[in-house]
Amino acid sequence: MKYIGPPSFIKAVQALSLLPGVGEKTAQRLIFSLMKNPSEKIPTLTNALTELMSHVRLCSSCFGYSEEVQCPICTDHHRDQSVLCVVEDPTNVFAIERSGQFHGLYHVLGGVLAPLDGIGPEQIRIGELMKRVEASTIKEVILATSPNVEGDATALYISHALEGKSIKVSRIAQGIPTGGSLEYTDQYTLGRAITDRRLWA
Amino acid sequence: MKYIGPPSFIKAVQALSLLPGVGEKTAQRLIFSLMKNPSEKIPTLTNALTELMSHVRLCSSCFGYSEEVQCPICTDHHRDQSVLCVVEDPTNVFAIERSGQFHGLYHVLGGVLAPLDGIGPEQIRIGELMKRVEASTIKEVILATSPNVEGDATALYISHALEGKSIKVSRIAQGIPTGGSLEYTDQYTLGRAITDRRLWA
Repeated sequence: MKYIGPPSFIKAVQALSLLPGVGEKTAQRLIFSLMKNPSEKIPTLTNALTELMSHVRLCSSCFGYSEEVQCPICTDHHRDQSVLCVVEDPTNVFAIERSGQFHGLYHVLGGVLAPLDGIGPEQIRIGELMKRVEASTIKEVILATSPNVEGDATALYISHALEGKSIKVSRIAQGIPTGGSLEYTDQYTLGRAITDRRLWA
Repeated sequence: MKYIGPPSFIKAVQALSLLPGVGEKTAQRLIFSLMKNPSEKIPTLTNALTELMSHVRLCSSCFGYSEEVQCPICTDHHRDQSVLCVVEDPTNVFAIERSGQFHGLYHVLGGVLAPLDGIGPEQIRIGELMKRVEASTIKEVILATSPNVEGDATALYISHALEGKSIKVSRIAQGIPTGGSLEYTDQYTLGRAITDRRLWA
């Protein structure tokens, strides 16, 4: 009779396997590592996760992750209050922040339009975006949803909704990724890289 | 000013990064996944880990992982009580069980001899092994430490200690792994595969 381990061990492996990219073998390896010094390693991890769950909520202005009512980006008066970057997901905020190229405010939609999945304009924070644009002195809205079918459709929908509001509406650039090579770039990306070419300053 | 996320988020990423093979990027990705539905996903994981920590201890006979005083292998009377497989680590028990080729009992040393790190026979459970061998009707001891310098030295030490006890002492086979190819097998392994060849039954 094969013995595959204590029940609590199997349960912990199953719980870890629910994470993306973590299969049963990886989960086992991680649990084995935690079991080397369980009374020290496990509380460190569980406390950090519990704290994360209890402390992090959505910012009341931008709907990004925050530990306060408003996130540090929304309350930072050194940031440009006239530019709003619209993203799909709270994690996109960190991605753009890492680039260091954006100094305005964010608006997190919490999804993209996907009519087949029943996600229309009411299900994502487009209404909140409109209210924010009307209540403030925003001069430019950058549509930074992903350049795929749903992201493009969402950007198009918002650009129509913002028409006639004397606000500049822009879309993040599509082109060849930094470090990429023309040889391995697909035809659509290469097409956009040509049509959206920049004048050499 | 770049904003890299709420403090509790950064702390959770750091805690996950302590796991082997989990870098900062992977930890971020896992945390982002947990944050999609934190009040459901995080307790599932933390409860499983806490339960693991509080339930799993070492078996009083074999020193493998167990939830009871004795593990299900040691208390299974269908298993061959006359063969003892000596392994380095509790996780090795599961690895051998998965093979389905061993039906005896285990003895977990909890390490291998490593004089340079100050690990001598007193630091691993060789004394306990001797007591067990003397107190029971064990007829064969299989030395299943890894076939590397420390594992070989540990196996050799134990084989000497068991001399004159009229017990069969064996060592797990070295050779080419199943599915491996001769072309890519190193000279030492190939040498062992030749010298340890089996007679065709």
